[in-house]
Amino acid sequence: MQNFIFHNPVKIYFGQGQATNITEEARRAGGAILMVYGGGSIKRNGAYNDVMKALQEAGNEVIELAGVTPNPRLDITLQGVKLVKEHDVKLILAVGGGSVIDCAKFIALGAGIGEDEDLWDDYIETGKQAPEDLVPLGVVLTTAATGSEMGDAAVLTHWERKRKLGYTSHPLTPRFSVLDPTYLTTLSREQTIYGFADMFCHTCEQYFSLPSDDNLSDEMAEAIMRHILRSWRACLAQPTDYTARSNAMWDSTLALNRIISRGKDEDWATHGIEHAISAKYDIPHGAGLAVVHPHWMKYVVEASPEATARFARWATNVWGVDATGKSDLVRAKEGIERYSDFLARVGAPRTLEEAGVHPDDAMFDAMADHVGDDARGSYKKIDRAAAREILVDCQTPVSFE
Amino acid sequence: MQNFIFHNPVKIYFGQGQATNITEEARRAGGAILMVYGGGSIKRNGAYNDVMKALQEAGNEVIELAGVTPNPRLDITLQGVKLVKEHDVKLILAVGGGSVIDCAKFIALGAGIGEDEDLWDDYIETGKQAPEDLVPLGVVLTTAATGSEMGDAAVLTHWERKRKLGYTSHPLTPRFSVLDPTYLTTLSREQTIYGFADMFCHTCEQYFSLPSDDNLSDEMAEAIMRHILRSWRACLAQPTDYTARSNAMWDSTLALNRIISRGKDEDWATHGIEHAISAKYDIPHGAGLAVVHPHWMKYVVEASPEATARFARWATNVWGVDATGKSDLVRAKEGIERYSDFLARVGAPRTLEEAGVHPDDAMFDAMADHVGDDARGSYKKIDRAAAREILVDCQTPVSFE
Repeated sequence: MQNFIFHNPVKIYFGQGQATNITEEARRAGGAILMVYGGGSIKRNGAYNDVMKALQEAGNEVIELAGVTPNPRLDITLQGVKLVKEHDVKLILAVGGGSVIDCAKFIALGAGIGEDEDLWDDYIETGKQAPEDLVPLGVVLTTAATGSEMGDAAVLTHWERKRKLGYTSHPLTPRFSVLDPTYLTTLSREQTIYGFADMFCHTCEQYFSLPSDDNLSDEMAEAIMRHILRSWRACLAQPTDYTARSNAMWDSTLALNRIISRGKDEDWATHGIEHAISAKYDIPHGAGLAVVHPHWMKYVVEASPEATARFARWATNVWGVDATGKSDLVRAKEGIERYSDFLARVGAPRTLEEAGVHPDDAMFDAMADHVGDDARGSYKKIDRAAAREILVDCQTPVSFE
Repeated sequence: MQNFIFHNPVKIYFGQGQATNITEEARRAGGAILMVYGGGSIKRNGAYNDVMKALQEAGNEVIELAGVTPNPRLDITLQGVKLVKEHDVKLILAVGGGSVIDCAKFIALGAGIGEDEDLWDDYIETGKQAPEDLVPLGVVLTTAATGSEMGDAAVLTHWERKRKLGYTSHPLTPRFSVLDPTYLTTLSREQTIYGFADMFCHTCEQYFSLPSDDNLSDEMAEAIMRHILRSWRACLAQPTDYTARSNAMWDSTLALNRIISRGKDEDWATHGIEHAISAKYDIPHGAGLAVVHPHWMKYVVEASPEATARFARWATNVWGVDATGKSDLVRAKEGIERYSDFLARVGAPRTLEEAGVHPDDAMFDAMADHVGDDARGSYKKIDRAAAREILVDCQTPVSFE
């Protein structure tokens, strides 16, 4: 196991009715609150009313910033930064899914950097670490997907430049997150599927990382993946079932609070490729991952005996592939095919076309450029050329025939 | 899943050489440091030197309190409280295993309560919650067992009254913990075994808790248990192997940082019974657990079809018991027997006698009184009478013959 630091101080309030705790958190903040949200779904799922009631009880000034989109963008983030400064905001409250949370994280960062610094050029493009004393962030989660509610990472899009970049720094970690599964019961089938595709991919990206020693992180990652698959089926079968939705919500949080990447180098190559797609086409992140992920697997599975063995273990322990009398490679390929078949069965896209994306050669080049040659990847480095090859392969479903 | 709060802000520094981070932590504390340790093993395993070097670099005043025993006691805790007050201590640094950490937690608590309050009578006996602003606690861990390094619980013995009590309150949570697996390589075979018995039991006590819904906590608990069994064998086979010891150290921390009890009522009945034994006989906690735990299982396994089903699941998923054509009860009993056999094979005690304890009727009564009628237990409440029955049964190894 490699040396690591683990420090995840987010206070999680989990369960029905937990938004009432916002009153105490708002009092602790002791000043104006910037409430960040998206397109109005929080007014249908009950979150908006619950939060407003708790805030009225506390009595803080509340400024609202609505309209954060999926694949959140720099422009609305900068509006938020301006509001934080104008109103001397003491708590940023993100009410929504991963996009809203990520936007709120960047608002906190943008308000905390020097007057002469540029949020995009000096931090997001360079990865320069955030200052320690950002305006604290609270979350009321209304999707089960990104894990941003219990993590230090966020993703932002610079739409004019067609760039979508991840950024990780400990001060972006929320102070608290309210996880009330009842807010998930109004999610559409598509949102549900994309959320599961995202959390499953998160778990895999940490699992398919070096070293391949017998680390507890891997055993726990397999547990989370099996559980995600059960929750996935349960939520599609019974979208309003509280138990199914509560399992989904906790699955997504555990999939990316870094507990399963301890002692390992994290890969994230699939996310790098997906960001290239949604930077250009603005498709849902989970849809892009569903397309790319099995194709990345196909590209990597034979990179080394160690890689093949890891995919074989995954095939058996996550997908239940019978190991009897089979080589690692046969098992590994069977696992990848089961994954692809499962995505088709639940209605997730498996090709660029199914995701509504039809790139020409120039666009394949542009997406490959977005991935670049600063290659990520454990078992196999994914540089510009590799990314292009994978993206071209994404025009048909994964097959080993 | 039941509603829950999860808030575990401990900063973990994991891996070889991580004690160097103590310099920065000491500077942050900015004042006198009380260093608490046991009988001198830290001078053999390298921890003492590493810590002293880091502290000299920082330059804080350091006061040493040595001599904390296994099953730590109130008297030395009160000595520590006096030192904290005399020297205006700004950081308590526990260098050792669970006993040293727990003693340090109670020193922090004792120094933080009102002058007119009594640590034992007003807090430990009553469970009254600790004040928020205790002197912060740092840990340098030298065993893999209790999980106290990443938790809010601690256990103390009032030897004159022959009482051993657990106490849980969030302000007892350490600020940081250094987990360097190299310190484990000098542990004796007995210490290694008792540590594993402890962490395995911790995982079980949370797993055998209600509700039995399909909670991710249970799937992760099974992962941890399987991994503990692998690490157990590996550490006994190769006591100086870094990978084996690093797995053991992280296993023990994950077994009791509350991540696997979320959404569940925690049972802890076996711990209640074991505390009664070591309160009277001062045996190692892990030895007592190895004796009691399978006997508790035998007592509970037929409490309800739900309980039996849970034990059957455990037997298959943790011990690999083949489920084909077997009733839940048959599988469950087979699992418990495998557990007992495993303990015998690694050399853990399975009976009171093997643990060096020979109670007469009066002592069985006294131990049952210690458990009392404020019954704990999920599938089956363990009151005074139940505890006595289990303890009497602990005179012979578990058997279903």
